[in-house]
Amino acid sequence: MTIYKEQINLKSHGKTPTFFNITDSVKEVIQKSKIQGGICVVISSHTTCSVFFEEFVHDYNENGNEFLQTDLNNVLQKIIPDNIAEGQYNYPGEKHYEAVASWPNAESYLPNGDRSALLNCDAHLKSTLLGSSEIFEVDEGKLGVGTTGYIYFVDFDRTRPRDRKCKIIVLGE
Amino acid sequence: MTIYKEQINLKSHGKTPTFFNITDSVKEVIQKSKIQGGICVVISSHTTCSVFFEEFVHDYNENGNEFLQTDLNNVLQKIIPDNIAEGQYNYPGEKHYEAVASWPNAESYLPNGDRSALLNCDAHLKSTLLGSSEIFEVDEGKLGVGTTGYIYFVDFDRTRPRDRKCKIIVLGE
Amino acid sequence: MTIYKEQINLKSHGKTPTFFNITDSVKEVIQKSKIQGGICVVISSHTTCSVFFEEFVHDYNENGNEFLQTDLNNVLQKIIPDNIAEGQYNYPGEKHYEAVASWPNAESYLPNGDRSALLNCDAHLKSTLLGSSEIFEVDEGKLGVGTTGYIYFVDFDRTRPRDRKCKIIVLGE
Repeated sequence: MTIYKEQINLKSHGKTPTFFNITDSVKEVIQKSKIQGGICVVISSHTTCSVFFEEFVHDYNENGNEFLQTDLNNVLQKIIPDNIAEGQYNYPGEKHYEAVASWPNAESYLPNGDRSALLNCDAHLKSTLLGSSEIFEVDEGKLGVGTTGYIYFVDFDRTRPRDRKCKIIVLGE
Repeated sequence: MTIYKEQINLKSHGKTPTFFNITDSVKEVIQKSKIQGGICVVISSHTTCSVFFEEFVHDYNENGNEFLQTDLNNVLQKIIPDNIAEGQYNYPGEKHYEAVASWPNAESYLPNGDRSALLNCDAHLKSTLLGSSEIFEVDEGKLGVGTTGYIYFVDFDRTRPRDRKCKIIVLGE
Repeated sequence: MTIYKEQINLKSHGKTPTFFNITDSVKEVIQKSKIQGGICVVISSHTTCSVFFEEFVHDYNENGNEFLQTDLNNVLQKIIPDNIAEGQYNYPGEKHYEAVASWPNAESYLPNGDRSALLNCDAHLKSTLLGSSEIFEVDEGKLGVGTTGYIYFVDFDRTRPRDRKCKIIVLGE
C-alpha cells in the first residue's frame, strides 16, 4: 500500500462564503498517485473552512455562487447569522483579542489592528457543523463519485480575502 | 497493510427520508476482509445521502422510522423544509433543468420529463450537513462501535424510489 | 505503511455538553507512532459524542467552556432544545426503555432505574449533525493543523457524568 499527497492553494474573496469546486484537482492528484484502489481524503486545515460533497448546479446567483450554494448559505444564515458586530456572539472575547495581538504573526489575524477581522464566529460554527474532512473512494484509478457528485471546499470567512490550503491524500494500492 | 472493499446496494422508498441500518453489512465486510486492526470507511457516493453513527431504538413510528430518525427528521425539517414547489429554493434553476435534460441518462433524473423529480433541494442540503462519509475503528477483527452504536445510511431524497450504493472500505493489518 | 493506535479515556461532567481539547493527546500519539506522513483518524465510539476541529479561544464562560463552545451550544440549543421531559421528543419510547432495562449492564444506562437517564435525545441529534469522526494530516511527523487549529471531543450528554473513550489511529509511513 502506498500514500501520495498534494496541497492545493486557494484564495477566498472574503465578501460572502467562498466556494471552490475542487473536483478536477482531486481527480488529478488521484491520477498522479497511480493508486488504483483505496481512499482519497480531502482535508481543510483551517477552522473556518469545510470540505463537502454536492451536486454541481448550472445556475449561478449574482455572487457567482451555484444555486445549491446559495440555498446552503440561506439555511445556515437562518441558524447562524453573519457575525457583523462585537457582542453578537461570545467569541471573540477580550483575552482572545489580547492573545492574538501578541502572536508573532498578529498582522495576519488583525491587519492594521482592525478588531473586526476576528468577527468570524459564524464561519467557525458553520465549519464545525459541516466538518473539516471528507473521504472518497478511489476505484480503478478514478474518483468514485458517480455522475453528479462533485467535491467542494468552502471558506465561510467573510472578513477579508484569505490564502487557504487544502490537503488531498490518497492511500491504496 | 491490506485493503478490502465491497459495495452494498440499497433501495429507497422515496416517500420520506429512507433510513437503512447497515451495521450487519459493515460487520460482514470487516469479517470477510480478515483485517484485525485498522479503519473501516463507509461512503455514500450520492449527493442526497449520508452515513451516520447512532443508537438503535426499539420504537418505530407509522413510517417504520426508529424514534431517533423521526426526531432527526423533525429537527432537519424545521431548518430545511421539504422542497415541495419550484421557487421555494433557488435550486434547481432553469439552466440545470436544461443540462439534466440533455444528459444521455436524462430519464433517470427526469422520468417522463417530470420536473418535480429535481425538487430535492432539501435532500441535498441535509446530506451536506450530515456529511457523506464516516470512519470507524476495526479492533481485534471487529467493528469498534461499543454496545449501543449502529451505522446508518440515509437517503434524504423524497421524490421517488432510488437505487443507492454504499461503499465499505477496510484498511489495516 | 504502518498503523498505530491508542485510546484516550475522558470523563464528562454531565451538566452541560462537556468539551475536551484533545490536541496534545493526538500530537503525542502521532509522535509515538513514528509515522512521518499519512493520516490521523480521531473517532468517538459513543452515539452522543463528536469530534471536531476548531480554534482554541482564550476566553471562558462560567461553565469553563471556551467562547466558541458557548456559541456552538447556543446555536445547537436553538434547533435542538435540551431534552428535559418525556414526550418532548419521540425518543426514548416505551419499547426502548424496556429493552435497555433488560440489558445485562442496564445499570449503566438506567442507574437506579432512573428513566430520566435516557432523556438525551438532544445529545444524539447534535452528535449526528457534527459527526463521529474526523481526519487530520500527518506531515513530517507532526499533526498538520496550522497555527490556530485544535481538535476537540465533545460529549453532548447532560444526563450524568460518563466515562468516554476516544480512538486515535495513525496510518502512514
